[in-house]
Amino acid sequence: MPSLLAYDDPASDVMLDAATGVRRSILPGGVRLLTQTDHSVRSASIGLWLPVGSRDERPEHAGSTHALEHLLFKGTERRTAMDIATAFDEVGGDSNAVTAKEHTLYFGRVRSSDVPRAIDVLTDMITASRLTPEALETEREVILEELAMAEDDPTDVGYETYLADVLGANTAVGRPVGGTAESVTALDIEDVRAHYREHYRPENLVVTAVGDIDHDELAELLSTGLRRGGWELEAGELPRRRPHLTDLAGSGPALTTDVAAISPHRLVRPTEQNHIFLGGPGISAVSEDRHTLSVLMSVLGGGMSSRLFQNIREQRGLAYSVYSFTAGYRDVGLFGLYAACRPGRTEQVVELLAAELTQMGADGIGEDELTRAKGQITGTFALGLEDTSSRMGRLGTIELVHGRYTSVDETLAKISRVDVAAVRDLAARLGESFSTRVEIGPDA
Amino acid sequence: MPSLLAYDDPASDVMLDAATGVRRSILPGGVRLLTQTDHSVRSASIGLWLPVGSRDERPEHAGSTHALEHLLFKGTERRTAMDIATAFDEVGGDSNAVTAKEHTLYFGRVRSSDVPRAIDVLTDMITASRLTPEALETEREVILEELAMAEDDPTDVGYETYLADVLGANTAVGRPVGGTAESVTALDIEDVRAHYREHYRPENLVVTAVGDIDHDELAELLSTGLRRGGWELEAGELPRRRPHLTDLAGSGPALTTDVAAISPHRLVRPTEQNHIFLGGPGISAVSEDRHTLSVLMSVLGGGMSSRLFQNIREQRGLAYSVYSFTAGYRDVGLFGLYAACRPGRTEQVVELLAAELTQMGADGIGEDELTRAKGQITGTFALGLEDTSSRMGRLGTIELVHGRYTSVDETLAKISRVDVAAVRDLAARLGESFSTRVEIGPDA
Repeated sequence: MPSLLAYDDPASDVMLDAATGVRRSILPGGVRLLTQTDHSVRSASIGLWLPVGSRDERPEHAGSTHALEHLLFKGTERRTAMDIATAFDEVGGDSNAVTAKEHTLYFGRVRSSDVPRAIDVLTDMITASRLTPEALETEREVILEELAMAEDDPTDVGYETYLADVLGANTAVGRPVGGTAESVTALDIEDVRAHYREHYRPENLVVTAVGDIDHDELAELLSTGLRRGGWELEAGELPRRRPHLTDLAGSGPALTTDVAAISPHRLVRPTEQNHIFLGGPGISAVSEDRHTLSVLMSVLGGGMSSRLFQNIREQRGLAYSVYSFTAGYRDVGLFGLYAACRPGRTEQVVELLAAELTQMGADGIGEDELTRAKGQITGTFALGLEDTSSRMGRLGTIELVHGRYTSVDETLAKISRVDVAAVRDLAARLGESFSTRVEIGPDA
Repeated sequence: MPSLLAYDDPASDVMLDAATGVRRSILPGGVRLLTQTDHSVRSASIGLWLPVGSRDERPEHAGSTHALEHLLFKGTERRTAMDIATAFDEVGGDSNAVTAKEHTLYFGRVRSSDVPRAIDVLTDMITASRLTPEALETEREVILEELAMAEDDPTDVGYETYLADVLGANTAVGRPVGGTAESVTALDIEDVRAHYREHYRPENLVVTAVGDIDHDELAELLSTGLRRGGWELEAGELPRRRPHLTDLAGSGPALTTDVAAISPHRLVRPTEQNHIFLGGPGISAVSEDRHTLSVLMSVLGGGMSSRLFQNIREQRGLAYSVYSFTAGYRDVGLFGLYAACRPGRTEQVVELLAAELTQMGADGIGEDELTRAKGQITGTFALGLEDTSSRMGRLGTIELVHGRYTSVDETLAKISRVDVAAVRDLAARLGESFSTRVEIGPDA
């Protein structure tokens, strides 16, 4: 059995990683199942993934993916909303659902004995949701409260604004995941139903599970559950990898090395702190530079020993929260530097944030920093993978984003090959890609 | 060896729980070490606990416990702040420190091979911190930024205000953990040093560790680390259980069953939502009623199937976030109902929140609800205990709060004995204990 499998490989049942027991099957209908059996725990994390998110929405239906995720909890042909709620609560752990820009995920962590019940309710939701107009009317109000809650969190508002400014406010990928109060108010149940019919299909579905499970038993439970909800699962069907809607802005934002030349996008709020987001376009989630980026981000703003933390917080006491961040999608990405401080310190903090990246592009990093960053990434990786939820998430990302399996050891080997020259070159590239400065805080 | 051990039992080395391998030693100096060895992971969670928190502060030194926690990262005789930051980053995982009302905790999750290094840096911090005036000057600014950040989070501000109103704004337990901008600005390094000398002592220290560790090796590492920092650890010393400063308000707030009669404490902010906190005094962390309270809270507002979630969110769409909560300290506690909604809905939401508890006190709960709540608590418990951090935390709580070991099975047995009558009685008691309504949101 091959140790690597391309997304569109027709092999229907492959051991992807014999050392850690990662196995992938294509079930009837083209449903993909990836599992890692681990009997050292008495539970399992299970995720049902659809490769559809807010960037698959047309502007006039913005928020429909997120609304659909909510409505899936409101009842099926066999279950009331209360039945679904009860099933999730009985599942315990960290069960929930997430709508993102490029995928939607329904997940739960359950005791081994509850796996059949969890699969039954999750498959019921994605195959046989009732999607009634009445449910939308109630849930619309809940979603409007959710948007109002986000609106009250300055970091949240600043981050969404920053994403829109860098990626393009009028592009599918740049719009906020939940839509706006206006678009949610205008949502029609037929839009949501059309979305459900078009995207919630066997050839789109990816199921990942890690823990005290048996791959073949799970395959059987899944097929039974999906068929009960009315899905016809034909043998020999293959998964489908549909491109996301891509309406990226043609030109993108103007890039500069001179942060002082960027006109800040200011949102005035009567807050105590000014929240600063500074950066520009970065690299996509599938770029081979992502390992170099991990190291760069660790050195720049990834922990207490990072340059931003040491120079802005520890040495100068200018901020409590200061870090760097990235976001990567299938074809685009961004980088950012964040700090929150009382307003009088803003200009000094902005200069210091930019200077750290610029200096790294000019002078590179030390071998000691490189070693420390690799140690930090490796350690965080190892510790993170001790819980089944993280591994379940990793299998989903591998299948949905990369479409090709990479073992943990392979990923760590790629990290270990990053050198100081690569970090310097990438820092120089990012240092030439500043485009955007968002601030949310009191009037200056 | 006994399976239970009272706090002041002079036995110096006891297997508390042979079934799960929980062991407790009193090391020289009276240092307590509680471990649970689990070789199914290749990491360990380690916590160093001091039984001292913000409620041990005199009002004029408010915030000094939290400031001390910050300053411990600023350098020791052997390490610079950067050395400490590097050690923590290399530790990976979820390393950090927490100041609470009744304890301070320094913790880390590390790979097995990093355990000696983690113990070395943590013991260095608690024994040999330099606590220089210069470090306080820088860190004071960081803490003021931290307080400003909290001030910008309406839920945070509302919760702190609620705690102060129920517990007494002028009591040690009612004051906010971090102090105020005024008290932090006034802090003197001598106050912080006095706090360190008085409380960071062997007879106060509790160390808990769970994972791929050996109890005796850890004991040796600890003693070595503490002695290196200058602690004289005498054989035969016993732990000390010092009472917290208790300056509880004599009478407490006025109690009522009539929520409409409570005058709201309104904080005006130009937010989208109004954040509502409603409730009153509850039960302490050591009350035997706490198991009944767990069941009650699960049925009332503990998950998607709970009464508050179903009746306020699912049926009526009045809120996105709605739940019940409790806080318990050694001698006092409180309960609360929370919801956030757009302002026009406030009065309806307040009525519905109160009505759910009142009705539970009058009519009790169904056997089906009781069964579901027990299932949820048991499942959450079982899943939570799969990670070493949760178990490390549980051992610390057992030692610091309860002073007597209880196995997971014993706790679950107590939960299983809760009946509908006990839940109804407790609901009736809480329904007669409404005292406080805090709202933070736009002007009505």
